[in-house]
Formats: sequence, structure tokens, C-alpha cells
Amino acid sequence: KLREDLADLKKNVDCMFLIVMGIFVFCLQGGFAFYESACVRPKNVTNVLFRNYIDSSISVICYLLTGYAFTFGGGDNGFCGTQYFALIGLPEDKMAHCFFQYTFAATSTSIVKGIMHERCTTAAFICYTCLVSGFIYPVASYWALSDNGWLKVLGFEDFAGSGSIHSLAGSASLAAAYMAGPRHDRFEKDGKINDIPLHSIPQAFLGSFFFVLGMLAFNTGSHGSITNEGDGIAVAKVAVNTLICVMASSVTAIVFQRFVIERSNSGWNFEVGLNGSFIGMITICAGCNQYQKWAALVVGILSYFVYLIAQSIIKFAKIDDPVGGLGGQMGGGFFGLVFVALFKDDGVFLQPSLTSANVLLINTVGGITIMIWAAGTMVLIYIVLRYFKLHRVSLSDEKIGLDEVVNKQPAYRSEDVLECQNEYASV
Amino acid sequence: KLREDLADLKKNVDCMFLIVMGIFVFCLQGGFAFYESACVRPKNVTNVLFRNYIDSSISVICYLLTGYAFTFGGGDNGFCGTQYFALIGLPEDKMAHCFFQYTFAATSTSIVKGIMHERCTTAAFICYTCLVSGFIYPVASYWALSDNGWLKVLGFEDFAGSGSIHSLAGSASLAAAYMAGPRHDRFEKDGKINDIPLHSIPQAFLGSFFFVLGMLAFNTGSHGSITNEGDGIAVAKVAVNTLICVMASSVTAIVFQRFVIERSNSGWNFEVGLNGSFIGMITICAGCNQYQKWAALVVGILSYFVYLIAQSIIKFAKIDDPVGGLGGQMGGGFFGLVFVALFKDDGVFLQPSLTSANVLLINTVGGITIMIWAAGTMVLIYIVLRYFKLHRVSLSDEKIGLDEVVNKQPAYRSEDVLECQNEYASV
Amino acid sequence: KLREDLADLKKNVDCMFLIVMGIFVFCLQGGFAFYESACVRPKNVTNVLFRNYIDSSISVICYLLTGYAFTFGGGDNGFCGTQYFALIGLPEDKMAHCFFQYTFAATSTSIVKGIMHERCTTAAFICYTCLVSGFIYPVASYWALSDNGWLKVLGFEDFAGSGSIHSLAGSASLAAAYMAGPRHDRFEKDGKINDIPLHSIPQAFLGSFFFVLGMLAFNTGSHGSITNEGDGIAVAKVAVNTLICVMASSVTAIVFQRFVIERSNSGWNFEVGLNGSFIGMITICAGCNQYQKWAALVVGILSYFVYLIAQSIIKFAKIDDPVGGLGGQMGGGFFGLVFVALFKDDGVFLQPSLTSANVLLINTVGGITIMIWAAGTMVLIYIVLRYFKLHRVSLSDEKIGLDEVVNKQPAYRSEDVLECQNEYASV
Repeated sequence: KLREDLADLKKNVDCMFLIVMGIFVFCLQGGFAFYESACVRPKNVTNVLFRNYIDSSISVICYLLTGYAFTFGGGDNGFCGTQYFALIGLPEDKMAHCFFQYTFAATSTSIVKGIMHERCTTAAFICYTCLVSGFIYPVASYWALSDNGWLKVLGFEDFAGSGSIHSLAGSASLAAAYMAGPRHDRFEKDGKINDIPLHSIPQAFLGSFFFVLGMLAFNTGSHGSITNEGDGIAVAKVAVNTLICVMASSVTAIVFQRFVIERSNSGWNFEVGLNGSFIGMITICAGCNQYQKWAALVVGILSYFVYLIAQSIIKFAKIDDPVGGLGGQMGGGFFGLVFVALFKDDGVFLQPSLTSANVLLINTVGGITIMIWAAGTMVLIYIVLRYFKLHRVSLSDEKIGLDEVVNKQPAYRSEDVLECQNEYASV
Repeated sequence: KLREDLADLKKNVDCMFLIVMGIFVFCLQGGFAFYESACVRPKNVTNVLFRNYIDSSISVICYLLTGYAFTFGGGDNGFCGTQYFALIGLPEDKMAHCFFQYTFAATSTSIVKGIMHERCTTAAFICYTCLVSGFIYPVASYWALSDNGWLKVLGFEDFAGSGSIHSLAGSASLAAAYMAGPRHDRFEKDGKINDIPLHSIPQAFLGSFFFVLGMLAFNTGSHGSITNEGDGIAVAKVAVNTLICVMASSVTAIVFQRFVIERSNSGWNFEVGLNGSFIGMITICAGCNQYQKWAALVVGILSYFVYLIAQSIIKFAKIDDPVGGLGGQMGGGFFGLVFVALFKDDGVFLQPSLTSANVLLINTVGGITIMIWAAGTMVLIYIVLRYFKLHRVSLSDEKIGLDEVVNKQPAYRSEDVLECQNEYASV
Repeated sequence: KLREDLADLKKNVDCMFLIVMGIFVFCLQGGFAFYESACVRPKNVTNVLFRNYIDSSISVICYLLTGYAFTFGGGDNGFCGTQYFALIGLPEDKMAHCFFQYTFAATSTSIVKGIMHERCTTAAFICYTCLVSGFIYPVASYWALSDNGWLKVLGFEDFAGSGSIHSLAGSASLAAAYMAGPRHDRFEKDGKINDIPLHSIPQAFLGSFFFVLGMLAFNTGSHGSITNEGDGIAVAKVAVNTLICVMASSVTAIVFQRFVIERSNSGWNFEVGLNGSFIGMITICAGCNQYQKWAALVVGILSYFVYLIAQSIIKFAKIDDPVGGLGGQMGGGFFGLVFVALFKDDGVFLQPSLTSANVLLINTVGGITIMIWAAGTMVLIYIVLRYFKLHRVSLSDEKIGLDEVVNKQPAYRSEDVLECQNEYASV
């Protein structure tokens, strides 16, 4: 009786853990909303926030209808789950898990949307939002997480989704951004690249702050339980490693920017610091449960250079990304998989052996396959969208701004605000 | 010994559950502040935020002095509790419960305040804030929650306060808004209705985002414990049902707006989407622990039409509501009570019988009585306030704006911000 | 077996408690960022947010390298800990504790930075951030918290860091602000004091709101565990006392301002209300686990007058503090220590005796010593900084604003926003 009682308590506490962490992970949705809306021009802010709000809604529908089933619906094949569609037949004690996993699906979906802002049609947005949350992400997750998933069987190691969330969403975005083309004023004919600066630093900060809150829960919650022996220790290790890595990458970013890239004007670039912290958050995911502290530090430092190189390639290839997250998501996600194979305790670096090299191989192959999967399906989607001319808004609409064209509502009524202060001053 | 130890652990974990969820529920206060301040004109923003900040403070005093006692102070009558005033005699192990319940009282109080913005005097505001948090809401809660409460005895079913919080606060607001009258420029003599648009979409989004965080905790925390058999499952069910319903109502809202109401200009209206999600949050409260997933979906879809109809009636009756929440609170709160009796597993819809019809009857009667109670007491308060001419600010003050008249501080110093950027540009 | 299982579960649940509360405490970082950025002029907003973001990063490095070791690294001396540098040798089950404690170190560091805004060089900022998080705060914490710490041995009572966090950070800031000197336009030669108003009330509100969320977790989490007998009750008591005190101080503040200080213009001053709530949060820390409800109320009321007096002294002494937190941190922190000795159940007030007088003496001496320690080390740092002329930016840089000089990025692109609305209107 007492034994049962204790087992029962454990189940309940695990549920609480997943629910509480799930609510915190949902903070990432606020992060995307505010960071992205700071990145775009004021004429697209309402549209950015609108898409952020409804993509959480759409991904609830799609993830519960098919997504959860594709990932966690068992099945004896290597490709995808086969039961629990529309949650039918789902055991009641899986519901907390389902809630928590939804917040991850919403994250992967949100990433793609961000990179398509300022030019994407509502139809295209709805289309890929449904497919990423209901099919593309869940299937790749099955490969990595399900007992019969082909990557899991081979020994793929990706604790909190560097591969199945970030590199997947990154490469899906890359394909979408390539197929939709850049914003009309991003790349000029003479090769000049117009950088569009953040229009509100406080808004960008708010987004970044929600990212930190969310990622701490994202990584710690990924452990999945808190009541088995050693769970507390494992979860705390994840939290501290996440802190170390994010700190290391953001400090590396601003120091490198200040003393190398911008040394001529001695600029401490804040935007670079924010991007530095994001890349750390992304790269640490795959191994935050395995690294020693020094390894988390090294991964943090290296991750920034991965980001720098990835961003350069993307700019060189004239792929347009309004929020600057493409290089981070793809590069950080993929190298997160590589780094865990290199720097974990029994990794290639500390224990070179066939076994450790095998993990490196599997993680590399896994990362690449996931990216091909994501990019391939997105290309197919966009071929259809292009056929119906739905892949991007018209040039005139893009110039006017989507707030006016799509949402009929400006984000800021600055005239009213100014007028109000003028009247105030005049009294 | 071990048995005691386990029982003790359970108590502690339940406390943690209530404290953590209570902190999350407090996020609703941020939600009200930012959503309301986005709804009003820039000249009233400081005042809105000021009221939001101090109404949390005032409701602490009033709820701990009398509110908690009226609801949870036992008593063998059907009307209200009779002990624990000023928390005197409150058993120590009820303190976490008291903390958690405070966050609910603060919610109901906050709702009323929102609907009175831009015209309400500070005196009136303080007056109804005290009465709602210390008396009106607690007494109605006693009816619904206390073992001897007359509604509870009859079999009233209202899990997370659709009736005792939302329909109560909604009808209290309706009475107050009616007694105070509309803002001077809302309804013109020729029948024209001036809609006052959101002056900052990012601010509205922030508020809405806090609402989602808060409501997930509001509903899950309403279960009250996490350590009894089945608690984890029950809480997770609540979380998933809340997601489904909020998603369904917000998607219904934007789709209906786009393809029916605004089909001529193809507008994807963001404000409507936000309101759609709010109504879902409100309506699901009463039964989020009972619905099957399909029922949560149906409730979400229906709730939006409840909102549409309620808002139309309110506009037609020329009741002024700056935040657009009146129809949602009253309609959603009341129909939340109706829907739970209809759509729960043993409800009228699936198991038509005398028993299930009885719940429908009690919930309807309960909802109506609660609304009469709230509206009636508010009318009495406003009769007194009108007698002393404290029910609304003067016309000239209303035109100048309450930031200047009441708080002597503009919310935005846009001139300074502009000047700063001009100087920046000129260097 | 079962006994071990239960003990293990308790450890895990305690870890969860610390991790969840730690994430909430991290909300304070958002609080500092938004409140401080609202306090400064628009030309320094990017810089304020930049510093807020990277000081969390820097304090991760310094606290994990030396800070945690100095506080919790055991040792048989009274001054500081001697092991766990760079977390080497730290038992794994201390990691959750380390994560939680980091959020406290980040808080103390953040306070100092706030008071130096608008004139401090990046070099000075980095310098004191490292020293406060890695040395000054950790050593004082050792005194108060470690079994061999000289204050702890004497019977120092400071539950959640009124002394070791707030009065320490306050006096460190005072020393730094004195050594760096005021902003050029704060005190005029004829004795006039230029008050610089908040440039965005919504931003200030957002910061304050994060403070409330964070402080609820800061105080409750300070209990450190949730699984021992009585932990749940103790934690709930802390939460309710924190609510009561914060409410009392903020209500006292606005009422006193309205009916005494600003009675001539009948102003309900919002900024004063915010500051009132901050002082309550600070003062309650030392004794929130001990007070009866009446005592929490009394402490809240008194704390506001402590704040008023402290701020007057600081203004009189022409110490410049852009965020208005100096008086609160020092006065509230120190008097928090005094009040706990006075108003706790077996304190001087209720049980005058040698024992209770002794606690008063130790707390007073402890508070003063901590302040001397903090101020003294900061003076030494600033002597060095002044020698290298790094203690403040040049006058011309100060006039231009640090956004442009240091970060090369304006916080707001208001012109773009305005232009966007003008275009919108013109269509």
C-alpha cells in the first residue's frame, strides 16, 4: 500500500514538473513575438505579432491531431508513429507529456515563421505552420526519440532537440526563404546588402529575456521526469550547463565584435550580444545533460564562430532572413549534434575510439538527414505555393507593409501619442 | 513513521504546487495592465497602469481582512463564512491556499476596473475595488465553493470560476458602466459609435501573452492539489483542454472575421483574434476538468458566437467598455456554466436525464443569481457615488486625460524620444 | 528500500523547487532592465539594456569561478569559503543550490549597475560587476550564511538577504556613485536639483511587475527546501508576508504622497507607488519567515518612511542615482535587519530581554559591517579606476549619450515609426 502510494506520488510530481516547465517553455512564444517584431520595420509589426499569436493556435490543432501521434504513437517502423491521432486512445497519464511536447512543437513552428516575415503571404504561412507542427517536425522527432525510430536505434544523441528542433526548423526556413526570395530592398543589384536595424531595442530585449526564461525550462524539462533516482542532479546539471554555455557564447560575441570586427569604432554591439546568447542556447541543447562545465564553456565559445560562418554563407548566398536566426538555427543545431559527440565525457575528444566515433558519425548523418528532410518537404510545399502564386505578397503590398494590407491595423499610433504629449505640454 | 513522512511530503508538495501556480496566476495582473493600457488613449495610460498596480495592493488588504474569511471561513449558513477575519485563527496549513486564492480575488477585481477606465474617479475606483475583493466576490465564491454554500449544496458545478469570477465581474462591470455612463466621445448623438483603436499592438500582445501564461496556471491550479491519486492526470487534462478551447475560439474568431464580417476587405483582424482567445479562456473555466477534447473544441467554437452576440447587445444598449471585455466576461462566464452542464460526459447532451437537466438548471440559476448579486450591489454603490458626484470625472478632466489630471505624469515622453533620435541622426 | 526511495524523492523535489524558483528569481533581471531603462533618458536606453544583458553573463562566470566557493566552500575561518573554486569538487547534489544562488548573486550585481547609469564607463562597469558577483557579495554572504561565518556564529538573522544583498549592494553603489560623481546636469550650481522623469511608464511598469514575480520567488525560495516537515507552511507564510508588506509600503507611499507631500495638487503619484513597493520588497527580506501578519504590515508602513529619509539624505549629499534605488537598497536593507530583531515573535518589541537585544545588536553591527565592507572595497576599486581616468565617460560623451558613443545603436527608431504611420494615414 505504502509502496503504491509512493509510486503514485511520483507520477503526480512528474506531471507537475512537466506542466510547470511546459508553461515556462511557452515563454519562448513571447520571445519569438517580441524579438521578431523588433527586427522588422514598423509597417510589419502588427502582422508579425498576429502570426505569432495564431501560430500557437494552429500548432495546437495540428500537433494534437497528428503531430503527437507521429512522434509518440509507437509503431514498429522506423519512420513515424501510427496511433493516438487526434489523441484517440491516448492513455490519460500521457496527457502531461503531450502538453509539454506541444510547447516544443510550437517552438519549431515559430522559428520558420520568423524567417519568412515581411514578404510571406498568409496562405503560405498557414500552410507551412500546419505542416511543420503536424508532420515535418513530429516525424523527425520520431526518428530521434521513439524506440523504433531509425536514428534512435542507431544511437543518435540529441537531448533537447538541437537536431530535431533547431537544425530542422533552420533548414526548413532556409528552403522556404530560398523559394520565396528575399525582400525587395534587401539585396541591391550592385551587390550592396541593406541591413535593417532593430527598430526597438527594449522590444528586442524583452523577446530575448523570454528566450532565456523559456530555454532554461526547455532544457531542464527535456529530462522529462524529476522523481527517479538522480533526476534532481541531472536537471540541475542541465540548468548550470545552459547558463555557462549561453554566457560564454554571448560574451564571446560581444568581445569578438568589439576587439576584432568593430575595433575601428570601438563598438559594443548589443544586437550581436543577443545573437550570441541565442546561438549558445541552440547549440547546448543536444548535450546539456552530458557536458562537464568546461565542455559547456568550450561549446559556448565555439558556437559563436559557427554562427559567424553560417551567417556569412547565408549572406553570401543572398538568402534573406529578417530576424538573423537562420545561421544560428541551422549551424547551431547541426554543430550542437557534432559537439556532443566530440566533447561529452566519453566523446571523441576525451575517449577516441570506434564507439565514440560512431556517435559522431550517427549524429552527423542524423543532422544532415533531418535537414534534408525538412528542406525537401518545404521545397515541395513551395513548389505548390509558387504554382498558385501564393509564395509571397505582391511588390506593392510589400512596400506598403503587411500591417495595412493584411491586418488593416497599424502597430503604433505614434501621431496620437505625440499629439497627446503636445497637448499635455501646452496646458 | 514512514507513513507520516509520506503524508507530510504530500502536504509540502501541495503547498509548492499552490505557491508556484499562484505566482503564475499573478501574471494575469500583468495581462490586465498591458492589455488595458493598449486599449485606452495615450492620455490615460499612466492612470491605467497606476490603477492596475494599486488594485493588486488594495485587494491584498481587503481579501486578507475579510475576503478569505467570507469565502473559506466555514459557517453553517448558506450565505457567507464567519471566521478567519484578518486571518485570525487561520490554521497555518491553509496559508498556501490563502495565497493562491488571493490571486483569484485580484483577478475578479481587476476585471471591473478595466471596464471603467478613462472616466472613473479615483474615489469610485477605490470604493468598488475594496468591495469586490473584500465582499462581493468572496460571498459569491462561498455560495459556489463552501460545503454549506447554497449553490454548492444544490450541486452547482463551476471548476475554475466561470460563474463566481467572470460572470460576477462582468455583471458588476455592466452595472458600474451603466451607472457611470459612457465616455463623452464614444456614442454620438446621431447614433454613430466611435471605436477607439488599440494605440500599441505590442503592448496589447504582451498583455494577452501574460493572460495565456496566467490562465494555464489559473485553471490547472484550480484543481487545488497535486498529490492525491489521479491529481496529475486531472491537472494535465485541464491544461490540454484549456489549450484546445483557447485555440478553437481564437481561430474561430479570426476566420469568421476574415470570411464573414470583413470579407469585403479581406482583413485578418488581430484585435478580434485576441478577443477570441480571451473568450475561450473565460468559457472553458467552468468545465475544463470535465470535458473530453471534442467538447473543449465545441465550447471554444461556440464561445466566440456567445461573445459576438453579447458584444452586440452591449453596443446596442450604449454601454461603454474601453477594453471590450464586458461581453466576454458576462457572456462567456454565464455560458461557461451552461456549457459544462450540456457537454460534460454525463451532461444533458450525452446523457439526457433528470439528473443532468438538474445541473443545467442549477448552473443557470446560479449564474443568474451571481450576476444579480454583483450587479445589484454595484448599483447600490453607484447610487451613493452619484449622490456625492464621485461616479465619474468632470467632462473637462476627461478631455484632458487622467494622466495629467490625476497622476500628473504623461506615460510617454515621445518628444524626448524623437529629439534624441534627431540628435543622433545629426551627428 | 522504501525509506531510501522516499529520501531520494525528497531530494529530487527539493531540486525541482530550487530550479523552478531560480527561474522565477531570474525574472528580477527583467525587472532591473525595464525599470532602469525607463528611468534614464532615451539616449542611454540601449546602453542600459546592454549592461543588463551582459551583467547576467559576467556574473555567471564570476560567481561560478569564485563566488559560490567564497560563500559555500566550507572552511574553518570566519571570513570566506576555501573550496569549490570553478565548481571543482562540488558534490553533484549541490548543483541545484548553486543555480539558485547564482540568481541571487546576479541580483546584487544588478543593483550596483543600475545606480551608475548614464555616466559610467564600460571598463568600470565590467570591473565592479566582476568584483561584486565574484568577491564582494560572496564574502559577505559567507559571513551571514556559512556555519563558520563570523556573523552567523554570533547569531545574525537575515533570512533572504536584506543585509547581504540589499544593504551591501546599496552601500557599494553609494560609494561608486560618490566616487564617480553625479551626471553633469543633475545638480546645478545654484543648488537646483533636476529631476529626470521616467520616459516610459509602461516600461517602468513592466520592470516593476517582473520585480514582484521575482521577489515572491526570491523570498519563498530562500527557504531552500520544500520537503522537510513544515516547509510548505513556512514557505506559504513567507509568500503571504511578502504580499502584505509590499502592499502596505506601496499604499503608504501613494497615500502619504497624495495627502501630505502633494496635497496641494492632489497628485496620485505613480512613480512614488512603484518605489513604495520596492522598499517593501527589500525591507521584508530579512524577516519574512518570522513575522506575524501584523508585523509584516508594520514593517511595510515603516519601511516607506525609512525610504523617504534615506532618499532625502542622499539628495542632500548630492549623490546622484538615476533609478532612485539607493535610499531603498541601503535604508531598506539595513532597517530590514533592525526590524526583524524588533518585530519578530521573540524580538525586542514583544519580548524585551538580553537575548532579543543581542539579536538587535548583532544585526545592527552586521548590517553596518557589511556596508563598510562593500563601500570600502568599492572605494578602492574606484581609486584605481580614477587613476586610469576610467571612472566616468567624458562630458561630451555623456551629453551625446552612451547609445551612440558606446553601443552605436539608438534604442528607438521613432522617425521610422512616425514615417510608417504617416504613410499609413496617407493611403
